Amino acid sequence: MPDMQNFNYHNATRYVYGSGEHRNIGYLLKPYVQGRVLLHYGSGSVIRSGLLQAVRNSLAEHGITFVELGGVKPNPSVELVREGIELCRKEDVKLVLAVGGGSVIDSAKGIAVGTPNRGDVWELYSCKGSIPANDPLPVATVLTLPAAGSENSPNTVLSNEKTGRKLGFKHMGLRPVLSIVDPTLFLTLPRTQMAYGACDMMCHIFERYFTNTTQTALTDALAEATMRTIMEQSIILSNDLQNIDAWGQLALSGTVAHNDLLGLGREQSWACHALEHELSAVYDVPHGGGLAVIIPAYIEAVWPYNPGIFAQWACNVMGVQPHRDTAAVVREGIRRLRTWYQLLGLPQTMQELGVPADANFDAMAAAACKVYDREAATPTLAGVHPLTAEEAASIYKVTI
Amino acid sequence: MPDMQNFNYHNATRYVYGSGEHRNIGYLLKPYVQGRVLLHYGSGSVIRSGLLQAVRNSLAEHGITFVELGGVKPNPSVELVREGIELCRKEDVKLVLAVGGGSVIDSAKGIAVGTPNRGDVWELYSCKGSIPANDPLPVATVLTLPAAGSENSPNTVLSNEKTGRKLGFKHMGLRPVLSIVDPTLFLTLPRTQMAYGACDMMCHIFERYFTNTTQTALTDALAEATMRTIMEQSIILSNDLQNIDAWGQLALSGTVAHNDLLGLGREQSWACHALEHELSAVYDVPHGGGLAVIIPAYIEAVWPYNPGIFAQWACNVMGVQPHRDTAAVVREGIRRLRTWYQLLGLPQTMQELGVPADANFDAMAAAACKVYDREAATPTLAGVHPLTAEEAASIYKVTI
Repeated sequence: MPDMQNFNYHNATRYVYGSGEHRNIGYLLKPYVQGRVLLHYGSGSVIRSGLLQAVRNSLAEHGITFVELGGVKPNPSVELVREGIELCRKEDVKLVLAVGGGSVIDSAKGIAVGTPNRGDVWELYSCKGSIPANDPLPVATVLTLPAAGSENSPNTVLSNEKTGRKLGFKHMGLRPVLSIVDPTLFLTLPRTQMAYGACDMMCHIFERYFTNTTQTALTDALAEATMRTIMEQSIILSNDLQNIDAWGQLALSGTVAHNDLLGLGREQSWACHALEHELSAVYDVPHGGGLAVIIPAYIEAVWPYNPGIFAQWACNVMGVQPHRDTAAVVREGIRRLRTWYQLLGLPQTMQELGVPADANFDAMAAAACKVYDREAATPTLAGVHPLTAEEAASIYKVTI
Repeated sequence: MPDMQNFNYHNATRYVYGSGEHRNIGYLLKPYVQGRVLLHYGSGSVIRSGLLQAVRNSLAEHGITFVELGGVKPNPSVELVREGIELCRKEDVKLVLAVGGGSVIDSAKGIAVGTPNRGDVWELYSCKGSIPANDPLPVATVLTLPAAGSENSPNTVLSNEKTGRKLGFKHMGLRPVLSIVDPTLFLTLPRTQMAYGACDMMCHIFERYFTNTTQTALTDALAEATMRTIMEQSIILSNDLQNIDAWGQLALSGTVAHNDLLGLGREQSWACHALEHELSAVYDVPHGGGLAVIIPAYIEAVWPYNPGIFAQWACNVMGVQPHRDTAAVVREGIRRLRTWYQLLGLPQTMQELGVPADANFDAMAAAACKVYDREAATPTLAGVHPLTAEEAASIYKVTI
């Protein structure tokens, strides 16, 4: 097994946390503003709650001029991103401010990278690893839903309804220059959104933690600490959605889960995300829900290839008593993971998710492998065991 | 007890980790270079090992022009910093590159903030919280000794031999723009340096972790994870100084211990550092050694004011079985901490440290309180319990 790899980590996001901080957006954003701003958002609660108006007021108060584009939907679409790019070019926008959750932030990042670069933005998402000619516009965020970690990550994921694909793009210039995480904004979120978010955060750590890389004592321990915190705080919230302290801890955990501190020098997987992205591209399921169905099946399929890391997880995260019967330890860990998902009210099967039993799982599995292993003649999904398309399909199928 | 505070965290250091990375200094530094560089270092091993020459070669290879100032000593002196400032002004230096441990980096930071600001640099250190008119020059580092965490912190500590003071200064512009952490550079370090370093790292976490702030689940858990890792890896190294993986993990832990991730939103103490700084200002003791003597006495003095956090530490870090007798749990935690110091060969008493029994502990305690609580009529040292000068003095005295 390989030892920890060299790494180059640069995370320059100014991260502002705390109750009421969203009202300081104008003051905090001002140093980064060198022209017009695009104010980007979704619909519904951001408007109803008065948050959007508060942001507008704060920007105006600090003399920041802006144009607006709302209407981002979950599983955000490249169509709206294209519209945003046109608007930004026309209005000579210099910075994109996302007020929303992961979908809005990911959409903002698509606009930010597309605006200064010629050609269709979807080509960047389609060609994994391609480098745009020009740096993206800076992105800033006011987070309204802790889940995707996009407020501190260099990643963005978009959906293309025409081609039925959901693809990611990563660029270090897409780490936001400023993110405001204000737990008072989370108090009106429904329990399902909290649960989807916690499930997504946990999976962001799984994709980094379940690895064959060794000599990773510190990131192992930090990842375990963060996973335990996500589970604890989400359980508090599932009984009391008004617990602002738990929202704060969950939100911080979600940021740490995906800013790559926990992945430093580790071979990463992203197999569960690949499988889920195909599912939501075709069936528009909520990302956190899709993950809850896929993850236990994934762990059951791959743990025998590296029992050590899965037993370590079962003991150090899921609280299983260490025991010489490694298989029993891992199975108990998986059972407890399922119990956590149940506690949060997450779906456990494709049926609960609304995906039909006769879905074309073979095609989705083949597509997932191809996205994540573009160059290979027989593409596989990375992880402790590289999954063939056939193995990947059977992970979907056992959850029907 | 107060809940977690709002915070604004910005840590833009490009952190490059891995075997052999020191040879890439020229390539990695180039994007940050806008003129001449000051190459700043100590004496002895950095020259003998060939590291300094390798750095010179890499800078030259990438067309980076530089002037040099060596000779930094442990407990670095403001005298050499003044010399560096004059040199930087004369040579129009635009960036300071430190090749060394915490002392060299802290000295480089003194030069970086002093060069663009009028008046004597010591005034900045003497006036806690004062803000210089101009931003410091950028600082970059090649770390040769994992301990102080200065490679990713905004802090610097200098000693003034004339006044017998050792004082700190903090400025967000002093977080290095680039730090290279290459574990191959640590393989020749003696066991005492490793032990001093591990003790300093652990104390950087203690100063943040032992707090009255509540609702800090995530940073509690991350701090505990990092403390456990420091203890484990330092014990490995105390038996095998050639274990490059353990050096790597210890070095990463030392960075996380002091880049303030673990202190986010927490009331912090810095009482042990204040007490140690007075000790090394007068007796020039190694910082890590001074801390090893002071810390157990400090914990014994203050734990009754917040038994909860100390019992949590004893269980989650020191591995004590949870028990209803909190005092017994904490005492066992302190006993195990002392055992760890003994394993590392650290001093346990003032005598072993070379500090005489008739040292003027009252004066040092009063000075420590005054540095950390400048405004108060009766200054105290912050923490779970604010220590009066008298209480602080008795912490010194029980360790004679």
